[in-house]
Amino acid sequence: MVIEQFKASANMLDEDPFDSTGLHPDPTNLLAQEHIDLGILKRLTGQSIISADQFDKELVLEICKFAALLEATEIASSRPLTGKIVITAFFEASTRTRLSFESAVLRLDGKIISIPTGQSTGVAKGESLSDIGEMFNAYGDLVVVRHTDTHSIEEIMQNLRLPLINAGNGSGEHPTQALADWFAILKWKPGLIKEHIKPRDQIHLGILGTPGSMRAVNSFLRMSILFQSGIRKISIVSEMADPLGPELADRLEKSGIAFEITNDIHAVQSDLDVIYVNSIAFLGDHYESLNSRFKLNKESDLKPDAVVLHPLARLDELDPLLDETHHNLYFTQAHGAVFVRQALFIAMLNRFDRLPKKAFPFINH
Amino acid sequence: MVIEQFKASANMLDEDPFDSTGLHPDPTNLLAQEHIDLGILKRLTGQSIISADQFDKELVLEICKFAALLEATEIASSRPLTGKIVITAFFEASTRTRLSFESAVLRLDGKIISIPTGQSTGVAKGESLSDIGEMFNAYGDLVVVRHTDTHSIEEIMQNLRLPLINAGNGSGEHPTQALADWFAILKWKPGLIKEHIKPRDQIHLGILGTPGSMRAVNSFLRMSILFQSGIRKISIVSEMADPLGPELADRLEKSGIAFEITNDIHAVQSDLDVIYVNSIAFLGDHYESLNSRFKLNKESDLKPDAVVLHPLARLDELDPLLDETHHNLYFTQAHGAVFVRQALFIAMLNRFDRLPKKAFPFINH
Amino acid sequence: MVIEQFKASANMLDEDPFDSTGLHPDPTNLLAQEHIDLGILKRLTGQSIISADQFDKELVLEICKFAALLEATEIASSRPLTGKIVITAFFEASTRTRLSFESAVLRLDGKIISIPTGQSTGVAKGESLSDIGEMFNAYGDLVVVRHTDTHSIEEIMQNLRLPLINAGNGSGEHPTQALADWFAILKWKPGLIKEHIKPRDQIHLGILGTPGSMRAVNSFLRMSILFQSGIRKISIVSEMADPLGPELADRLEKSGIAFEITNDIHAVQSDLDVIYVNSIAFLGDHYESLNSRFKLNKESDLKPDAVVLHPLARLDELDPLLDETHHNLYFTQAHGAVFVRQALFIAMLNRFDRLPKKAFPFINH
Repeated sequence: MVIEQFKASANMLDEDPFDSTGLHPDPTNLLAQEHIDLGILKRLTGQSIISADQFDKELVLEICKFAALLEATEIASSRPLTGKIVITAFFEASTRTRLSFESAVLRLDGKIISIPTGQSTGVAKGESLSDIGEMFNAYGDLVVVRHTDTHSIEEIMQNLRLPLINAGNGSGEHPTQALADWFAILKWKPGLIKEHIKPRDQIHLGILGTPGSMRAVNSFLRMSILFQSGIRKISIVSEMADPLGPELADRLEKSGIAFEITNDIHAVQSDLDVIYVNSIAFLGDHYESLNSRFKLNKESDLKPDAVVLHPLARLDELDPLLDETHHNLYFTQAHGAVFVRQALFIAMLNRFDRLPKKAFPFINH
Repeated sequence: MVIEQFKASANMLDEDPFDSTGLHPDPTNLLAQEHIDLGILKRLTGQSIISADQFDKELVLEICKFAALLEATEIASSRPLTGKIVITAFFEASTRTRLSFESAVLRLDGKIISIPTGQSTGVAKGESLSDIGEMFNAYGDLVVVRHTDTHSIEEIMQNLRLPLINAGNGSGEHPTQALADWFAILKWKPGLIKEHIKPRDQIHLGILGTPGSMRAVNSFLRMSILFQSGIRKISIVSEMADPLGPELADRLEKSGIAFEITNDIHAVQSDLDVIYVNSIAFLGDHYESLNSRFKLNKESDLKPDAVVLHPLARLDELDPLLDETHHNLYFTQAHGAVFVRQALFIAMLNRFDRLPKKAFPFINH
Repeated sequence: MVIEQFKASANMLDEDPFDSTGLHPDPTNLLAQEHIDLGILKRLTGQSIISADQFDKELVLEICKFAALLEATEIASSRPLTGKIVITAFFEASTRTRLSFESAVLRLDGKIISIPTGQSTGVAKGESLSDIGEMFNAYGDLVVVRHTDTHSIEEIMQNLRLPLINAGNGSGEHPTQALADWFAILKWKPGLIKEHIKPRDQIHLGILGTPGSMRAVNSFLRMSILFQSGIRKISIVSEMADPLGPELADRLEKSGIAFEITNDIHAVQSDLDVIYVNSIAFLGDHYESLNSRFKLNKESDLKPDAVVLHPLARLDELDPLLDETHHNLYFTQAHGAVFVRQALFIAMLNRFDRLPKKAFPFINH
């Protein structure tokens, strides 16, 4: 069955994709007709996940469908990660992201050893990241790393023989966040996976943030380009004159997606279908908030069906009063991240053979 | 069988309630005749535990009997929490209490994700507690929270859909500590559960501390009022002129228990049967020790059968030379806390169906 | 079969003891002929491991053979620590050592509760170590402790009824590191276990460091004395005039091993067979690096078959360019530490009955 035919009925904006709780889009939206292609997912076996650039559209799609299967069923109870140890090494402390990864591991019966912060005593401060990578070889089966330094991942991989997930490297990338972002968008609007989409069904995507220096929006933008058939236009709202940098700008131009740069959300918000907000600019060693031209609240002039994404944690750029509205796709996004990470762990460690029989109807072996 | 008849022979002060090691009262003291009433314990299913005020006497009693069953048998080996994740969120760091909860979870085969301190980087510092509560929904099945701020628990519960245990909120409450306190007292003197107790078998209870501003003694005093039939008098030893505040004072007066306030332990110690010591006054953002008029040591003029409670950690207000005496009920209290917390986890998560057959003779289904 | 006959063919320097990957000596070198003697290993049941002085040669040997069995086989999958909780209490933070112990526990299906740093709030700072030891009794089955204070271990053991492993106490000892050191050496050169060794097969052992004040080299030197039949000479390279102190100097003299003290590695390096490097001098509350006379790099004039040990983490005293050479035994040493610790856990908790049948051919019951 070709992707073009997949869930053809689900891409109209006037449909309600939310589940019976009204809180989250129904993950079965992504499972309706097309089987999960294990052959594509197995491309991840033994691989590290460093950048959104590693993914093509069909791989993103299979990860999202597999995550949807994990979210919709009790597959985790078959304990697919039994006997595996994941090392969560958060040299840059992050409670939210660390707990998301650890919850994903534990739900699948894997085990965790953790470095919850980069604070430590004398010795460790001077130890090289490549030595730390060598150490990990002896202690676990997969490593999740967050670090303040953009170059940390390549250094840690010099001696590492385990697969690694980059959970945020300085002003670099945060690719599993981008997968969680698109998992939320595709549950909300599965029609975006098609290759041929009518202009009226394409989305206008707004990004509040600076992709050139903010890792979450950087990875999100790179992955969004894969879905260019579903995107009418991208509007980047940033306080920077050049929020992209030459490489990203070039990439975006070659994609054929129309895009514009503005410094005020009010200039575009009433036309946006998806608004990606991220107030957090990591600037070497501290964070900086954006000012009031970059904030959303319940009075913002949003389209009735527009949805808002935010990688969280949020400060005041996103008003909690939006939480109770259908604009709120950010809680869906945060919850779904656990299942995306579960999908990656099973694929990277090739534990597909541990999936229970009830998963089989959804999988092409 | 009515509670009045329960373990009728166990409430004489001249009996030795200690087990064969001589270290701890025998938990089977609490299991001798009366079955555990699951109907009462199931009132906890899906509930949060915020304050000692939530408990009535029969609920405290069933929790203590169930904790005694867990202490006396190998029920934990039936793995009643398999597949459940408990989040231990200690925004106020506390090694002792965190480890007590975590040990309780792991002994029952549950899993842990942990926030061991409130220290974290930029983003998290500005994140609201209600957002953190929302995050927890996606990551676990039950949350244990300690925080320096008295209002933290209500904020975190705004978006939380999981059951929560308040493990200490600022100068507020610490209800599971109070349950552990009474578990120790009832193992030592099971006769105190009766409704009609002769004056000579009632206890004189001394409290060194300030219930109005110290969470452990606050919760302990609130729970003690439930056992008013067994209490002849309460003496509160505090450096504060008004250690109770109007609400607690009113509560105590309505209970009908005689009480007095003094500022020197020497004025009352020779008449006390149970002495609750807590040197630690949490004053906004730091701790303050009490002075020498509030200290116990081996030279203190205690009744031969008097027992001492202390929620620990202790500083110099409680002399380690008392450890080797039968006055020491505080180690029993600390050890028993693990079983009280196990009982709460099983009840809150309704995992009674995982109990092994050997537990059945002690349970009314 | 007597030890003298064990693996007689393995002690020639011109043999290549490395496994097929070329990275590590083959652990089956240690398993070839002699069965593991459980009677000797069971001397560890319920015991604490405080000092290298507790070990005799045959106990070190059986631990190393058992570790080799764990490294060479899939015995961990029989889950020998199911139901056991190990408390890793790193009052002195150490990511590397903590993760090594935790990985060892988790691979055997034990569980972990952890104190990752000594930082904590008010109360705990004043709590005595003996009270902390008492607390551990209620929470776990075995305790691993690291602390900046040399006297910490004896204080924590005052009330502790669980077996304990000293994972480094101030300037005291680090006995499991010494076991890991000798596990690496014996895998590399199993002939060193013999009682009678020809002079040409004995090793010249160099130690860069100050045994009298550095815990890792202290424990290593104490354990090395047990293998005096295989050691031609020990050269200690230290910036201190008296790097041993009277007790260690006396011990070394009584052993009959020739030894010398120098302050420049260049004076001895071309004759050394094993070089133990440790740049880290713990001086009360901080670390100090040694200067350039105590550094190894690829230009160092080493014997072709010489091997280098280092307890890691390293700073600049050991050049990473040595990593790719056969001089590098320090990665073997670090990896093997996990199996040594697994062997200790199984022995101390007497879980030999959980070993799988495939282990039986290697064991004398």
